[in-house]
Formats: sequence, structure tokens, C-alpha cells
Amino acid sequence: MITTAGIHDLVAEDLTRVEARMRQFVGDDNETLAEAIDYLVQAGGKRLRPIITLLATRFQPTDTDKAVSLAAAVEMLHTATLVHDDLIDNALFRRGSPTLNAKWSPGATILTGDYMFSRSASLAAETDSVRIVKVFAATLSTIVNGELQQLFNNGHDATPPTLEEYHRRIYAKTASLFAAAAKMGGILAKLPETLIQDLNDYGYYLGMAFQVMDDILDFQGDEERLGKPVANDLRQGIATLPALIFLESHPDHPIILKAVARRYPTNEEIQSVAAEIRDAGCLKQALDEARRFAEQAKDALKPLPDNQYRQALAHIADYAVARDI
Amino acid sequence: MITTAGIHDLVAEDLTRVEARMRQFVGDDNETLAEAIDYLVQAGGKRLRPIITLLATRFQPTDTDKAVSLAAAVEMLHTATLVHDDLIDNALFRRGSPTLNAKWSPGATILTGDYMFSRSASLAAETDSVRIVKVFAATLSTIVNGELQQLFNNGHDATPPTLEEYHRRIYAKTASLFAAAAKMGGILAKLPETLIQDLNDYGYYLGMAFQVMDDILDFQGDEERLGKPVANDLRQGIATLPALIFLESHPDHPIILKAVARRYPTNEEIQSVAAEIRDAGCLKQALDEARRFAEQAKDALKPLPDNQYRQALAHIADYAVARDI
Repeated sequence: MITTAGIHDLVAEDLTRVEARMRQFVGDDNETLAEAIDYLVQAGGKRLRPIITLLATRFQPTDTDKAVSLAAAVEMLHTATLVHDDLIDNALFRRGSPTLNAKWSPGATILTGDYMFSRSASLAAETDSVRIVKVFAATLSTIVNGELQQLFNNGHDATPPTLEEYHRRIYAKTASLFAAAAKMGGILAKLPETLIQDLNDYGYYLGMAFQVMDDILDFQGDEERLGKPVANDLRQGIATLPALIFLESHPDHPIILKAVARRYPTNEEIQSVAAEIRDAGCLKQALDEARRFAEQAKDALKPLPDNQYRQALAHIADYAVARDI
Repeated sequence: MITTAGIHDLVAEDLTRVEARMRQFVGDDNETLAEAIDYLVQAGGKRLRPIITLLATRFQPTDTDKAVSLAAAVEMLHTATLVHDDLIDNALFRRGSPTLNAKWSPGATILTGDYMFSRSASLAAETDSVRIVKVFAATLSTIVNGELQQLFNNGHDATPPTLEEYHRRIYAKTASLFAAAAKMGGILAKLPETLIQDLNDYGYYLGMAFQVMDDILDFQGDEERLGKPVANDLRQGIATLPALIFLESHPDHPIILKAVARRYPTNEEIQSVAAEIRDAGCLKQALDEARRFAEQAKDALKPLPDNQYRQALAHIADYAVARDI
């Protein structure tokens, strides 16, 4: 079996080029903007999305330069959406680093995100594949539409989402870009249609697993390490899987209903309901769900050739849900 | 010679389809977002940019459906940038209608602009031309980069721009999209490279003329009709052509220097310097410059076949600078 270090070895060189391509500044001299993008690239995360794209392009000989551009496009799009999200949420830290909006005016933050959208579209077009550009642009539509729906559903009469609505929300928020990252890699590698669809499904299920894990983590509440308070989503009125599982046996739980109806419970109330949710074993149940998604991700890979790239993608799915509760 | 009514007849049918394509909602059901886009499309202006694109596609038989998508992409991009600009400037009205940010939260306004960017990229990709997508994305980079440079140049030590800097700014702000609108039409129509470049130049000079006229209008100050106070740009610290011409003979004019250094003159000071600029004939001199740009736009058209489409493009250049001072 391939190890995490093994995956790193597979893509390390290209990933360095992906970061360089993201930093590559195009257009009139604008040192401040170039510095901001450097900062955002350097403060990046685990680069899961571009790694998936790169691995997906490896199943057939593929122009490395285009693969790097595509992976950079994917990560740039992701980063741009985070820049706007952090501004909208007034988040001051991300991954332990100050957000752009913590340092800059709202106007400069909005425009930097816009610039990154335009650069990500240019990078996607560098693949010379219109089909890839179409998938790329449609994915951004899906992500933004999902955020807007969440933003609009914020009245005092709001009720907790159904499980189906939750799944739709985390698809838009996370799984859509994971699916596109894998699918576009397959398109660039000119794989047969059925395998492109398999890669899409892999990305979809992996993204779902990844977001459920993130939603579990939110209830574990390690304020120092994560830089955000426990049950941050619920504080903002968003009920995620652990809360939805808990609601099945406590459908009238007043604090959750209060939070969802945007009547903002106190910190004590949130901490107490988070403890109840943990104590009831709902994080464990949510973890089971994440692991089912990860299994489905691996199942989707089965028709692909059994090589180190497929093993690496499977390993990422295992890794995504490897945390203990 | 073709008339304005004649131009309308040439493109009216396609323009109706352009608006329908802009309204076409894609993605999960989201009535509120769909309504917002309807509103923004309905509150649109003279549609100069999509008209230019449509006319440019007519020089050779071109797939009408793709021409309509491209024209819709151009106008959608323009509208999206205005949505973010109005939010950043805190503008409450545009063309007499309330802006989106006057009605919605900043977050919803940012995301609606983002959604429109993604839709405009999808529309551009419907041409099935990667080259068009590249021009399209690069144009958005240029526009946003220009806005950011303007935003960053806002210290108390800021000095008035040189004429060259002014030209660079209005290229980024306006002429770049006019140039792209004409050029992309030529690319879609598969015109010879030299004619594509001529269309690009036409759009460039037309856009420059158009923005200079807009900057003149700003000094004419018809608050009721325009919905904004006289010398609005200067109030915000931006010296446009009439002020720059005036500075040539009054290099130390304290109010202009104060405005540019973001020390915000009073309303009385602004009104008095605007009157000085008008009385010194600087609007007339700026108009001469706009008319020179319009002539250059028409000159750029000369290598194109002398048909009703070329006449229509030339008429638009005349029309752009037809106003009396």
C-alpha cells in the first residue's frame, strides 16, 4: 500500500510548480496585489484538491504543463472563494493566519477575490479544453449558489434542514469542487467517458466525507488549535450532521431550534448542547457516515487501472476519515 | 449613413435573446437570486458592449447562438463588475434604480456578483473557443487589477496622475472590455488576424472616448438626472481628464491637490473648483480629446468591409461623442 509520504513523492515536484503558477502575476505591475496573493498561497492548506487533479491526470500520459495549470486553477478557485467567505463571515483567522479581510479594507478584499477568480479562469483555459472551462465555471456557479441559498435561509422561521438538504448543501460547498477536481483531471488525460465519470464520483464521495469530517471537527472544539470556538456553525444558525443526528432523538431541542431560527443562543447554551451532542454519541454516528462516503469514494475508483495513482487516491479517502472521535 | 434606429433594427432581435440568455438561471432552484439577476438585467443601460460584439460577429456568417452567448457573457461580466463596484463605493443608485447593495446585505451582494462572474465565464465558454475564454478572463484580470491599483493609491501623499497614468486607468476600467467585446466578436466570426486586431483597436479607442465623455459628464453635474453630485470622482480623490487639463495651467491648485491626497474638500470647495474647471474651458478641451479617440476608432475600422455593420460601428463612435458641452 502507498503511504502519505509516497503520495507526496508522486506529486511533490508538480505541486511546487502549482504554487509557483498560482503566484505568477499577470497584468500591470501591482506589487501590493502580488504580495497579497503570495501571502494567500503561502497560507494555504493541504492542497488536497490540486493533488487529486494531478493524480487524476496521471492515468494516461498528459501534458505536465497543462496538468499544473489545471491544478493551480482548482486551488486558486478554492482560495478565491475562501477570501470572499472570510470577508462575509468576518472571520479574522484561517489556519492560524490572519485573513485578508483582517488586514485589508472590504473593497480591497472583494477585488482581490475577483482578481483570483479571473486568474483561475485563465489558468483553466490554459488547458486548451473548452469542456474543462465549462466544468470549471459551472462548479463556481454551484458553490456560490449554495452559499447564497444558505444566506437567504436565515429568517426567524427557519427550521433545521432535512438530511437531504444537508447533503445538497455540503455538495455545493465542498463536494462539487472535489468532484470537478478529479473529473477535470480525467478529461485532461483524455480518459474514456466512463472513467471520467468514475473520477467525478470519487471526488464527489471524497468531498462529502471530507465535509462531514469538518463538521464533526467543529463539535470537538479545540479553540486554540482551530482558532474558532466549538460548534461555530451552530452559533451561526447552521445545523450540520452531528446536530441533525441528535435532533432525530431530540426533535424539539430548544437550543438547536433557537440557533437555526437565528435567535442566537448564548455561549453557555451552545457549549451545553455541543456537550450533549458529543455525549449522545452523535459524532461517532457522523463518523460512520463519513466512512461510508470514503468507502464509496474508493469503490468508484475500482474500474480505474490498479496503479500507484489509484492507490494514492484511495489512500487520500482513507486519510480523510482516519481521525478518531 | 446608418441611423441609430437602423442599428437598433440590425441587432434588436439578437439583443432580446442576449437579455433572455442573461436571465437564464442555471443550477439549483434559487428564486431570490434569479429575481436579483432579473432586476439587474432589467436595470441595464444602453447595451453598447453586447451590441458591439454582435456587430463584430456579422462580418462573416457566424453561429447566431454562439454570438448571443458571447454578447451575453460580455454584458454579464460588465454587470457583475458594477455590482461589486457599487458595493465598494457604497453607491445607492445606478441609472436611477437602487443598487443591489442598497437593498441587500454586503454578503449577498458579493456572492451575487460572484455568481454572475461564474455565469459569464460559462456563457463565454459556450462559444466553444478557448481563445475567447482566454481573452475574456484576461480582461477581467485587467479590470480588477486597475480598480485595485486605484484603491491602493489612496494615501495622504498621493499626487495627481500623469496623463499616461490616466489613460492606463481608463483603459483598465472601460476600454479593455470594449476592446475585448469587439475582438472576441471578430474571433468568433473567424475573421483574419489583422481584422481581429483592427476590431480590438476600434473597441479600445471607442472605450477611451466613452470614458472621457463619462468623465466630462461628471463635471457637468446634473444631480437629479445622474443621481450623483457634481465632480463625484474628484470628491473621492480621483482626478480625471478635465481636472488634469486644468492642472496644467494651475499645477498647485489647492483643492485638487487636497482631494487627490484624500483630505476630502468640502462640498463648497468641490463645487467651486468644478466651476473653475468648466469656466476655464477644460471640458471643451477634454471633449476634443474624446473626439480624437472616436476618430481613431473609426480609422481602425477602415480595413473592414464597408457594409452596414461597419457603418453601425462607426455610427456608435460618432454617437459616443455627439454631446454638446
